Amino acid sequence: MDLDQLETPAAVVDLDIMAANLARMAAYCRAHGLGWRPHTKTHKSPLVAAAQLRAGATGLTVATLREAEVMAGLSDDLLLAYPPVGPAKLARLMRLDPWPARLRVALDSIDVLEPLGRAALVAGREVGVLIELDAGMHRVGVQSPADAVRLARAVASTGGVRYDGVLFYPGHIRDSVDDQAPALIALSTTLSHFLSALREAGLPPRVVSGGSTPSVWRSHEMPGLTEVRAGTTVFSDRTTAAIGVCDWSECAYSVLATVVSTTVPGQAVIDAGSKALSKEELRGSGGGFGALLDDPNVVVSGLSEEHGLLDLTRSARRPKIGDRVRVVPNHVCVSVNLQETVWGLERGVVVTSWPVEGRGR
Amino acid sequence: MDLDQLETPAAVVDLDIMAANLARMAAYCRAHGLGWRPHTKTHKSPLVAAAQLRAGATGLTVATLREAEVMAGLSDDLLLAYPPVGPAKLARLMRLDPWPARLRVALDSIDVLEPLGRAALVAGREVGVLIELDAGMHRVGVQSPADAVRLARAVASTGGVRYDGVLFYPGHIRDSVDDQAPALIALSTTLSHFLSALREAGLPPRVVSGGSTPSVWRSHEMPGLTEVRAGTTVFSDRTTAAIGVCDWSECAYSVLATVVSTTVPGQAVIDAGSKALSKEELRGSGGGFGALLDDPNVVVSGLSEEHGLLDLTRSARRPKIGDRVRVVPNHVCVSVNLQETVWGLERGVVVTSWPVEGRGR
Repeated sequence: MDLDQLETPAAVVDLDIMAANLARMAAYCRAHGLGWRPHTKTHKSPLVAAAQLRAGATGLTVATLREAEVMAGLSDDLLLAYPPVGPAKLARLMRLDPWPARLRVALDSIDVLEPLGRAALVAGREVGVLIELDAGMHRVGVQSPADAVRLARAVASTGGVRYDGVLFYPGHIRDSVDDQAPALIALSTTLSHFLSALREAGLPPRVVSGGSTPSVWRSHEMPGLTEVRAGTTVFSDRTTAAIGVCDWSECAYSVLATVVSTTVPGQAVIDAGSKALSKEELRGSGGGFGALLDDPNVVVSGLSEEHGLLDLTRSARRPKIGDRVRVVPNHVCVSVNLQETVWGLERGVVVTSWPVEGRGR
Repeated sequence: MDLDQLETPAAVVDLDIMAANLARMAAYCRAHGLGWRPHTKTHKSPLVAAAQLRAGATGLTVATLREAEVMAGLSDDLLLAYPPVGPAKLARLMRLDPWPARLRVALDSIDVLEPLGRAALVAGREVGVLIELDAGMHRVGVQSPADAVRLARAVASTGGVRYDGVLFYPGHIRDSVDDQAPALIALSTTLSHFLSALREAGLPPRVVSGGSTPSVWRSHEMPGLTEVRAGTTVFSDRTTAAIGVCDWSECAYSVLATVVSTTVPGQAVIDAGSKALSKEELRGSGGGFGALLDDPNVVVSGLSEEHGLLDLTRSARRPKIGDRVRVVPNHVCVSVNLQETVWGLERGVVVTSWPVEGRGR
C-alpha cells in the first residue's frame, strides 16, 4: 500500500532503519560482553519484540502487567522492572502464561517483597528479585549500601523468591552525549559503593541491570554492568537525536499527518496534535514538540489536541491543504502509546502493520 | 464495587459532581439564551454525551471522524469542528449512520470546501458549513473580514453545502477568570468586525459558535454568540480550577493510583505516570502535573511513563506502600484519551463503567 492511502494521523516505522538500529544495539552489547534486555514499553508490540530477540536480545523488559502478559510467550527470560503492588497485580503476575523459565522483578522495599514471596509460594512459582538502587535519579530505589544489603538479605531469606542481583535506571543522565562524563563518574562511584557492600556481605549480585537510552553508548563504562535495558533505541526520536545518541537519519518512527489549514502566515496546521504526538517538552535544544522528518528545521511549535502548528519561518517550504508530512515526535514511547496501529514501511511503501497490543492496563 | 477493588491506575468520575457540572452549564446557557453544544473530545463517550443531552445540551461537537461515528446516533444535531481533508475522511463523513438531521462542518478555506461539496453532492447529502474565524488565537481561521465574506460567498454558491454561519475558538484566552477583561474586549472588537462585514455582504450568520472552557462564564459577553462548545466543564481539571473557572470541589475526574515506592525522602511514587495522566504543563500557578483530590498541596512534581512523584514537602501526609490516592490531572481531556475504561462513582462506590469509545482514529 502506498503511504498516501493511509488515513492520518498514522504512526509509521521505517523497517530498514529499525533493523539497523537493532543491529547497532546488538553489536554494541556483543562487543562489550553485555546482555541486551530491551524495554518493550517503547513499542508495546510482540512483533517488534520478536525482531529484537531475532537480532540478539537476551531477554525482555516490561513495566506493566499488560506488557508482561503480551510478551510472556516470546522470551523465557522476562524482567518486570516495576514493583507489583496489590493482590490484583500479584495474581496477574502469577498467572502469566506461559510462565517464563526466568522471571525477575525489581523492587526497593520489604513491603513489596513480602506479598510477592507469599504469592509466589502459593502459586508454586519462584521469582528472581533484583534490588532497585537509587543511582542518582532520586525516583525510586534503596538509598544506601546498608539498605541494599538489608533488603538483599531479606530476599535471600524469603520463600518464593530468589536473590539475583541489582537494577538501576540512570535516568538522571540526560545531558548530551558529549557532556556526560561528570555524571558518569558520579554514577560509577555510587554504583561501586553499592556493589562492594553487597559483595562484602556475601551477597554478590549475579545481575547488574542498567542502561538508559541517553547513556546507552557509555553503558560499558558503568562498573559491574551485566545487561542493558535501554528501550528507545529501537525507533529513536527527536530527543535522542538532539542529545547526540543517534543521527537524525536513525529516527525510524514518525507520525504521518495531513495539512488542514494554512490561513495564518508563517505556519501550517496538521492533523497530528497532542493526541497523536504527545505534548512533552524537548530535552536538548530546538524547542517545540516535534520536527519534520525530511526537514527538521520545520518544528511543531504548538500542539492542541488535534492540531499541530508547523513553524515555517526557518524553511522555504510552503505546504498546501492536503499535503502530507512526517513528524518525528520528541518522545517516541508516549507517541506510540497513543496509537492503535503502527504501519511498517520498506522504501516508503507500507508493507505491514501491527497493533500496539501492550498498551492499556 | 468498592474503589479499593479497582486495579490501578484507574480513571474515576464522581457522577454526582458531573451531574452538578452539567446542570450548571445548562443553567448558564439557558439564562443567557445560548445554545449548548459541548465538545465531546473531553470524554469521548456516548454515555456521557447522552447525559449532556438529557441535561439540556442542544447538540454535540466532535473533532475527529471517530468521535463523529460514535456520537452520530445520539443527537440529530452534530458539529464537526474540524476540517475533513482527504478522500478517506470525506467518505467516512458521508457514511455517518444514522445521518444527523443537521450536520455542520467548520472550515477556513476553499481547498477544504470544494471537495466537501463534491462529496456531499455525490452522496446526496447537504452539509451545513460554518466559516472558522481567527478571533485572536492564530491557530486556524480566516484572517480578515474580507476573507470571511469571500469564503462565505463561495459556500453559498457551492452545491452540497449550506452556509450556516461562523465558528471561532477563543483558545488564546487562557488567563485566570479575573484577568480576562482586556482579552474579552479585544475579542469582541475582532468578532464585531467579522460579523458586520458578513451582514453588510448579505450573509448574516445564523450560527455564531464559540466558547472555550477558560472563558466559558463570559460567553454571554461575546457579541452575537448563539452557542457554546466548551467541553472540559463536564469533568473540570486542575487547570480549570487553577484559573478560577471552577472550584476544586467541582473536579469530577481523577486517576486512582497506588503508592509503589517511598524510599526517597520527601516523596512517594505512584503507579500513575505520563501514560495515565499525560505530561502537560499547568496553566496558572502551582507547577507539576497533577495534585491529590483530597489534598491539593500534594503535587505530582515529576512524571515518568509509569511513575508519578508526589511531592510531600508541603503536607504532613506520609503515604505507605499500597496506599491509594486520587490525582486530578492538569488536563483532563488528554488523560481520558489514555484510558480504555472510566469508572463511575456514587458516594465513593463504583456503580458503573464505560469504555472511551471515541478514542483512536
